[in-house]
Amino acid sequence: MADGLTKSGGDKPGGDKPSLSAEALRAKAEGLSIDAAIIAVGSELLTPHKVDTNSLFITQVLNDLGIAVAHKAIVGDNRAELAAQVAHGLARHQVLILTGGLGPTDDDLTREVVAGHLGLTMDEDPAIVDAIERRFAARGWKMPAVNRRQALVPRGATVLANPNGTAPGLWIEHDGAAIALLPGPPREMKPMMDGEVRTRLAPFAGLVRLHRRVIRVSGRGESAVEEMVQPIYSGWLNQSPPIETTILAGLGQVELHLLTQATDVDGAAIALDAAVNQITTVMGADVVSVDGRELEAVVGDLLRQRRWHVALAESCTGGLATSRLTDIPGSSDYVERSVVAYSNRSKVELLGVGEALIAEHGAVSEPVAVAMATGIRDRAGAAVGVGITGIAGPGGGSEHKPVGTVCIAVAGRDTRVRTFRFPGGREMVKALSANTAIDMLRRLLLEV
Amino acid sequence: MADGLTKSGGDKPGGDKPSLSAEALRAKAEGLSIDAAIIAVGSELLTPHKVDTNSLFITQVLNDLGIAVAHKAIVGDNRAELAAQVAHGLARHQVLILTGGLGPTDDDLTREVVAGHLGLTMDEDPAIVDAIERRFAARGWKMPAVNRRQALVPRGATVLANPNGTAPGLWIEHDGAAIALLPGPPREMKPMMDGEVRTRLAPFAGLVRLHRRVIRVSGRGESAVEEMVQPIYSGWLNQSPPIETTILAGLGQVELHLLTQATDVDGAAIALDAAVNQITTVMGADVVSVDGRELEAVVGDLLRQRRWHVALAESCTGGLATSRLTDIPGSSDYVERSVVAYSNRSKVELLGVGEALIAEHGAVSEPVAVAMATGIRDRAGAAVGVGITGIAGPGGGSEHKPVGTVCIAVAGRDTRVRTFRFPGGREMVKALSANTAIDMLRRLLLEV
Repeated sequence: MADGLTKSGGDKPGGDKPSLSAEALRAKAEGLSIDAAIIAVGSELLTPHKVDTNSLFITQVLNDLGIAVAHKAIVGDNRAELAAQVAHGLARHQVLILTGGLGPTDDDLTREVVAGHLGLTMDEDPAIVDAIERRFAARGWKMPAVNRRQALVPRGATVLANPNGTAPGLWIEHDGAAIALLPGPPREMKPMMDGEVRTRLAPFAGLVRLHRRVIRVSGRGESAVEEMVQPIYSGWLNQSPPIETTILAGLGQVELHLLTQATDVDGAAIALDAAVNQITTVMGADVVSVDGRELEAVVGDLLRQRRWHVALAESCTGGLATSRLTDIPGSSDYVERSVVAYSNRSKVELLGVGEALIAEHGAVSEPVAVAMATGIRDRAGAAVGVGITGIAGPGGGSEHKPVGTVCIAVAGRDTRVRTFRFPGGREMVKALSANTAIDMLRRLLLEV
Repeated sequence: MADGLTKSGGDKPGGDKPSLSAEALRAKAEGLSIDAAIIAVGSELLTPHKVDTNSLFITQVLNDLGIAVAHKAIVGDNRAELAAQVAHGLARHQVLILTGGLGPTDDDLTREVVAGHLGLTMDEDPAIVDAIERRFAARGWKMPAVNRRQALVPRGATVLANPNGTAPGLWIEHDGAAIALLPGPPREMKPMMDGEVRTRLAPFAGLVRLHRRVIRVSGRGESAVEEMVQPIYSGWLNQSPPIETTILAGLGQVELHLLTQATDVDGAAIALDAAVNQITTVMGADVVSVDGRELEAVVGDLLRQRRWHVALAESCTGGLATSRLTDIPGSSDYVERSVVAYSNRSKVELLGVGEALIAEHGAVSEPVAVAMATGIRDRAGAAVGVGITGIAGPGGGSEHKPVGTVCIAVAGRDTRVRTFRFPGGREMVKALSANTAIDMLRRLLLEV
């Protein structure tokens, strides 16, 4: 997806540190967007337990400015690794944002590694020493000597004030590139990125902005969606403004991301609206939303518009379908009740499913799914009922009904029932079943 | 932390693609650990909305083998960027793990970029075509033509079977380095990493292994746990082998990770066992597990040992507590039923909660929580019942009962009920309520 966006420096892998490539300079001259690399520094980010999330916020700000992120790197508090990533990033990109490693201790290396790479001497800035001393004094403490390191500033760098911590940020313009060094804690990083860095990046970014639409599709796999929409979106690359399409597969859902960059906001909106229309025409009721709403929110809106209540009878999903529906604020307006009828006895007692029906067809069968849906609908006095019964595994499967066999019924005025064979382990079967049940409910609601 | 582990190749930043550095070779010869780079591929991972989490699991497996992660990179579906990262990774590290970009579409580039960098021709593997065709046929579908790309295998590579998806993985040994290409979806990546890749990496790793124990604690915040255990674990750093402790906060739970590296497996086990014992002595019933089991698995084991059934009556959690309990395979043995009683009417009809009780105390009150727990217990004929009623928000709060107010009752032979004020938004209140209810059930089970 980023292909058309990134205007990166040549194809040579690795690379011997060219200055900005001819292509990048041309792109910039034409007002096309530039691209950025983000480096997160901190050994804790290389453990099995911590993930870098700072880059999400940074990406949002960069994208707002029309700057795409071409790559992200995560390195520990290790001089050689950090130096290698700084070199790699500056060789390929015009904007480099670093977070972390600005603390006072020996293993905080970002300042000196960046300065070293650029060949800049560092001087102690008395104003920063003073600010840190006052910060400590305000709590009645004396500044530890180690904190003096935080006052070192590469010559030519601009200091970015940090009202939320001791580590000031740094802004460096060097050889046509923009480099920002930001503290790691999100509460310190975010205001700096959103304030001074955004302001200083704006002239770098040019007039182009990124515009995005997200289309959610259900009921078809990634490959099937690709085959249907590829003939459509392949044409978008040659129009003006061109639109890039990315297809993302989730559990039971596929997302189409449509992305364009343009200086003309209205033109971009018109082009994206037309593109979304082409997709919805082809995909019909498979389109869940074109405005980013989740499936359960769409179903909630449909129920609310129709003033309908829903009631659910779940077996193999164990309450997950109801839990997803009730993730939406205000869902108590339309979710009347739900029952997790795990035992046969509870299916009989709570839903009025006939014992003979279970004996004849088995608990996992379309007649039982229908009886669960109509049973909960009628007992709740709801307009529509949902029944889900299946084998989530790993045990309980048989030759005729292997693990993953799930029967789902939706009963409004008329009743629909389908049998699925879902792949994957227990949690995946639960997730796919819940998603499919909510989607069947959505499709029924669309037709009333 | 990873600093002591990384034995990275030399100090030259950027770099002209050296083979394994003298330092790395020496480290390996001495049985010290080697290091790895992880590259996550996918343009969606460069948006403001998606973060790479695959690398956490991969890091865990690598660390188990005594292999530290020296850096992680995230690139889009972009040939030049991916090629640059592959070159960068292989120039510096002995192990390279890539995830994503193995799909069937044009923008899935990992296979061909890695093969191209290594100078390997790709051939179509008929066995893979066959496997993918059968996978589609099992659902009654025909394999789309695009999926043939997934059958391309670089010469000399080993194919890693993927029982959970169409994209096979690839294992390549080249010039002393080990390279694994894994699919992006976690359910496909994890079994491959934990199985074939772990086995094949073992001979690459040295003799030093990381040994880890995970202690799960509930009912106390991160700072409270830190205060209790800090005097204990601070001593562990000076013993032999030293043990490092990390405290991680999750939703309603805290994890203590105890880590040591040693060549002596038995010695490490004895040291860790002693350390775990010190913690459990201090933390008592707050310790959920010392063997990595999740809370819901611990509760499941306790219910099974006692041959008890549980039934749940949920309101604000909307089925989430039951869904968590039923994530455990075989939970149908002890989860009898559950009811999501969102409306007052359903509380009366399904649980026998008195209308007068609701009128007097309000639906969110300890008496109603108790009536829900005893009501579902008695109707289900279960040994223990759980009742959860609260205000998940964002609406519905009042001065006396603000959003986050949740009453939870657990009724076995005796009954316990507590009122909580949980922080956060709707999903967090749901998650904390479900977790706390399951934990109250655990504590009751411990005492019978």
